[in-house]
Amino acid sequence: MKMSEIKIELTTNPKEKPAVDQLGFGQVFTDHMFIMDYTEGQGWHDPRIIPYQPLSLEPSSMVFHYGQSVFEGLKAYLTVNNETLLFRPDRNFNRLNNSNDRLVIPAIDEELALEGLKKLVTIDREWIPNAPGTSLYVRPFIIATEPHLGVHPAKNYLFMIIMSPSGSYYKGGINPVKIMVEQQFVRAVVGGTGEAKTGGNYASALKGQEIADREGYAQTLWLDGKENRYIEEVGSMNIFFKINGTVITPALNGSILPGITRDSMIQVLKSKNIPVEERLISIDEVVEAYQNGTLEEAFGTGTAAVISPVGELKWRDEKMIINNGEIGEVSQMLYDTLTGIQNGTIEDTFGWTIKL
Amino acid sequence: MKMSEIKIELTTNPKEKPAVDQLGFGQVFTDHMFIMDYTEGQGWHDPRIIPYQPLSLEPSSMVFHYGQSVFEGLKAYLTVNNETLLFRPDRNFNRLNNSNDRLVIPAIDEELALEGLKKLVTIDREWIPNAPGTSLYVRPFIIATEPHLGVHPAKNYLFMIIMSPSGSYYKGGINPVKIMVEQQFVRAVVGGTGEAKTGGNYASALKGQEIADREGYAQTLWLDGKENRYIEEVGSMNIFFKINGTVITPALNGSILPGITRDSMIQVLKSKNIPVEERLISIDEVVEAYQNGTLEEAFGTGTAAVISPVGELKWRDEKMIINNGEIGEVSQMLYDTLTGIQNGTIEDTFGWTIKL
Repeated sequence: MKMSEIKIELTTNPKEKPAVDQLGFGQVFTDHMFIMDYTEGQGWHDPRIIPYQPLSLEPSSMVFHYGQSVFEGLKAYLTVNNETLLFRPDRNFNRLNNSNDRLVIPAIDEELALEGLKKLVTIDREWIPNAPGTSLYVRPFIIATEPHLGVHPAKNYLFMIIMSPSGSYYKGGINPVKIMVEQQFVRAVVGGTGEAKTGGNYASALKGQEIADREGYAQTLWLDGKENRYIEEVGSMNIFFKINGTVITPALNGSILPGITRDSMIQVLKSKNIPVEERLISIDEVVEAYQNGTLEEAFGTGTAAVISPVGELKWRDEKMIINNGEIGEVSQMLYDTLTGIQNGTIEDTFGWTIKL
Repeated sequence: MKMSEIKIELTTNPKEKPAVDQLGFGQVFTDHMFIMDYTEGQGWHDPRIIPYQPLSLEPSSMVFHYGQSVFEGLKAYLTVNNETLLFRPDRNFNRLNNSNDRLVIPAIDEELALEGLKKLVTIDREWIPNAPGTSLYVRPFIIATEPHLGVHPAKNYLFMIIMSPSGSYYKGGINPVKIMVEQQFVRAVVGGTGEAKTGGNYASALKGQEIADREGYAQTLWLDGKENRYIEEVGSMNIFFKINGTVITPALNGSILPGITRDSMIQVLKSKNIPVEERLISIDEVVEAYQNGTLEEAFGTGTAAVISPVGELKWRDEKMIINNGEIGEVSQMLYDTLTGIQNGTIEDTFGWTIKL
């Protein structure tokens, strides 16, 4: 499918852009959105860019009832040379299709989606904020729209891309977060939807988040659903531990989201000859490392914050203060490397960035 | 809150009702719907009945992204005496609030919801089909509408009730179904959302259903997520086995939906002095009973079909034909008793029905 097939209707009523120092996250959207329909028998059709606008949906639309919804999150950046840059967007559309497969949603044409995204970012380029740490958050998503209460894969879907200018995650430098290990509730189990980016995974995680909030913790660290023993991931991030010089992150076992930032971090670590292992890691191993003084750093990785150092990890009655509650050396290096590649101050030797 | 607070706006453009012999399931909706808003700080407000109409929602509405959606299913019946009857609707709104709690959605006023439902059914009473086995399917549901891409419990929701005239599930008498035990995919795990009626649970089950479809089976029987050994439930039903005179159904362990039909069946069995047990039951126990000739009946229970006898159960390479693929004596008695109470031909000694 060719780029020329994407029809474009520009807004006649552009919105006012928020001031850079007023930017929040995910509440203000750009002037346009990408949209494409799926109809059984016809496939995905009518890719188009249109003014950002509400959707009109029947109350019986299946997304309201049976949870067939998947999404992605990535960012467009302005580099120090005022170039527009996307970071590994192909990985996002590839993962979206993996999520689609898990929820029996028809695959999208990844190349067409990328072309649509490039076109959309180009059209709304002036919405990319240019202050340090800011970016344009990009949200591709798919919802089931067939108006039918029967439980089956829907016959109609919408694929959309919406975009929101986003402020710096760390306004006054990187702030380590306090994380609480959840004991009662479970995010996902092998055989379930944990490795897909589905709406349902996030809904099921809210209860653990509520408990963490109540106790003054920023996020939940999830253990596996079978033995409640092995570390999986944090609320909206993958997790890494540096123990005795080696960086360890849970292996992708089917119930953990295969984070693109996670993968990038592993590649950066390898390129710097820092030992990194993807394997099973139990909460007991982390506690033991803490107690014998070899737990040197812990950090979460994700698109929103890039890196969130973990300053405190709570497990049962044990409050583990990691690296004196400060960002560690490896965490800082990873943050600097990734954000440097994203803002164009560090050469991208990995081939991760696409300039528009 | 009083019933008089429910505002009513009647349609000026009533739709044509489908012919009774053309009724399907969940595709045609009545003239009106119940709707109520939730706003943080204000609570649930503005309960009202309005003409059935599309919803206008921002693309950033949280239900499209983070899966905060819960629902219920029940039916309104016309009795043989032309009375309108609801079956245990209080249990549905109670369960809806349990689902709300799991997904951190604010509780609804169950009494108000019931008043809204009664009023709605009364207004659209002529939509209840009157042929044997037909009914008006009722779908209460809640969706998160806050337009915000942040992962947190939404600050805005819609609670709605929509209704659809529904045909007889069994057009030519009760038809036993073929069920396949799923080995790879998992529906839910203890600590997850399995006992709540969330959209995400149904989305995650589609993959197993796809496999069953491909092999010519009607539905999936799910095993537990920890050991892949204990029986949980069927796609959209709870499951019962009659082994050597005793009826056994999996105990409610946190990952199984607490079916209202399930509960009703247990009460009917007890009232008839038929031994019934709620306990752990492994697939091995079922296979063993089949092999030694004591597996007498198997059936699923749910609102849609009331009872679905299982004529064949497939586990790995074993195809177990149960009761010669015919409906069993106990299954038939349960079906007759429940539908008799629902259509008014059997006296409701349980206090389950509400006449409008």
